[in-house]
Amino acid sequence: MPYLDRDGDVFVLYLGNEGQTDSENRFHPDWIDAIHAKLDEVEAAEGPAALVTVATGKYFSNGLDTDWLFGNMDKMHWYLDRVHTVFSRLLAFGMPTVAALNGHAFGAGAMLATSHDFRVMRSDRGYWCLPEVHLGMPFTVAMNALVTERLSNQVALEAMTTGRRYGAADAIAAGIVDEAAEADGVLAAAVARAAALTGNRKPNLPVIKRALHGRALAGLNTPTTPENLAFGS
Amino acid sequence: MPYLDRDGDVFVLYLGNEGQTDSENRFHPDWIDAIHAKLDEVEAAEGPAALVTVATGKYFSNGLDTDWLFGNMDKMHWYLDRVHTVFSRLLAFGMPTVAALNGHAFGAGAMLATSHDFRVMRSDRGYWCLPEVHLGMPFTVAMNALVTERLSNQVALEAMTTGRRYGAADAIAAGIVDEAAEADGVLAAAVARAAALTGNRKPNLPVIKRALHGRALAGLNTPTTPENLAFGS
Amino acid sequence: MPYLDRDGDVFVLYLGNEGQTDSENRFHPDWIDAIHAKLDEVEAAEGPAALVTVATGKYFSNGLDTDWLFGNMDKMHWYLDRVHTVFSRLLAFGMPTVAALNGHAFGAGAMLATSHDFRVMRSDRGYWCLPEVHLGMPFTVAMNALVTERLSNQVALEAMTTGRRYGAADAIAAGIVDEAAEADGVLAAAVARAAALTGNRKPNLPVIKRALHGRALAGLNTPTTPENLAFGS
Repeated sequence: MPYLDRDGDVFVLYLGNEGQTDSENRFHPDWIDAIHAKLDEVEAAEGPAALVTVATGKYFSNGLDTDWLFGNMDKMHWYLDRVHTVFSRLLAFGMPTVAALNGHAFGAGAMLATSHDFRVMRSDRGYWCLPEVHLGMPFTVAMNALVTERLSNQVALEAMTTGRRYGAADAIAAGIVDEAAEADGVLAAAVARAAALTGNRKPNLPVIKRALHGRALAGLNTPTTPENLAFGS
Repeated sequence: MPYLDRDGDVFVLYLGNEGQTDSENRFHPDWIDAIHAKLDEVEAAEGPAALVTVATGKYFSNGLDTDWLFGNMDKMHWYLDRVHTVFSRLLAFGMPTVAALNGHAFGAGAMLATSHDFRVMRSDRGYWCLPEVHLGMPFTVAMNALVTERLSNQVALEAMTTGRRYGAADAIAAGIVDEAAEADGVLAAAVARAAALTGNRKPNLPVIKRALHGRALAGLNTPTTPENLAFGS
Repeated sequence: MPYLDRDGDVFVLYLGNEGQTDSENRFHPDWIDAIHAKLDEVEAAEGPAALVTVATGKYFSNGLDTDWLFGNMDKMHWYLDRVHTVFSRLLAFGMPTVAALNGHAFGAGAMLATSHDFRVMRSDRGYWCLPEVHLGMPFTVAMNALVTERLSNQVALEAMTTGRRYGAADAIAAGIVDEAAEADGVLAAAVARAAALTGNRKPNLPVIKRALHGRALAGLNTPTTPENLAFGS
């Protein structure tokens, strides 16, 4: 389960299990609940603050929990909407947020990274990738809104229709991530970036973010239905 | 009239007349019908596939057939809506698409290029250009939507309000095209790019594209009327 | 008060008082009226024309007139809507427009620059900056629309949520300005850019601009109310 650490005014949210170094950090319903509980803790702190999200090992997050989903297909729409709540909450989070991409960010894991204000990516290994096109899957209205509003149209097109795997250099060139760092320095670089922004944790920040991300949030709050899942729009 | 060739799983749609090396490939109503007929043929093929669009000689496409249009001004709105169908069909086409810009792409010809997933442009000659501002013309709601949704706001502004002619290097810098190639290598580069993507021709691809291009397609499907043509919005 | 000069077919609008070399050029209600009066004069001229906006000294414009505003809080919504009229008018202005950033462009002053077609910025000093996040202020619906429609989502996010001060090189890299020039050459570079575009001053130009900026203009024309000011969306 996700756990919290703290470095000065920067909260560090680990996506994996404490002590386990190579989990895939997929979106299991309990994992989603735990993420929200940890974000509640972070939000409850007063004063200057920022959030860094990271994991350990090979994966940042490998996306949807397909094992759980295939065993609970009757709950698919409910499940997808729960996944979307993580994205929409982070997009409008009341303090600066930085994702430290220690490893692969695939599918919903890539979207999780894109839901943060900024992204620092390990330069030697790991990909940001939307593999849905190869898996025969469409994007939900919510996921489509997140990706297309956050990235340029041509980058969204390449990411969504080709499933390209972006390493750090390609991801920076495409505007998908903001900074690269050595493997050992990804978390430190993300924390340094976040630490410089803790003073912006003020009541106007979430107001600014909700306006700035108005269209993405409207899309993310669209309930998943058979119609909008099948046709994507 | 446009004709088809095939290179493995890649369909190559030539915009000009077979055997003629320097046609302007303007949007005559019959030419539009022929394009749709050839796209029907391409779509009818089963299995992995991709589309490359190209021409021979000096022009990729020089845009609207103004000779025809000036002789049929009473059909202008019908005609423009027919032009838009080519853009909207390609934008959501059920397989990867690449435009090989062998020469000039002007006005509706530039928009035709921009309606493909990717563009490879000849590096030594030829321009992508929207000359409407110099011709005293507005853009239709449909054309405005295509250009402004596909390109960044500042690039759309420069292209639409200054009529700048973008050679390959400038077009890449502006995000208008994706790759440059030597004159003799444009088609081969486009075919190579398309061939690498044929496996993505699956039922979810057009669903992904329709969602990704939702706003552009909504604009492209807006009928041209005296009001929206005159005021552009 | 703002005054006009002319260089061939290029009108040069100075934001400060004639003979005063270091005014802050804040948006006082009388200053807004004077800007509109000068733009009326420019528009009344016939034939080829373009507009360059510049100031002298340390500031291009330092934004809202907070001294006036704090003494007239009961007129805040009226005042903000008056500020927005400058942005919306320039965005759809009937001739090419270039901002020559001789110095700092902060808050509404940065938005004034962004309301022009193009921006030339002094390379050695001066910042484009949205300091609202540090001042505890949200953005109006109108201002949010202007910034988010003109800039990429990630650049808008960084500018609006971190208050980053962009010098010329950073502003070019972010797509916020188009060109840098030596301190003594900013006005000349802006005039040269504008002079090359005077021939585009035709009836179709404002039509093209209104369509191109359709969403930004819809936002800019949204009246400021307690609700939309407080929540930003």
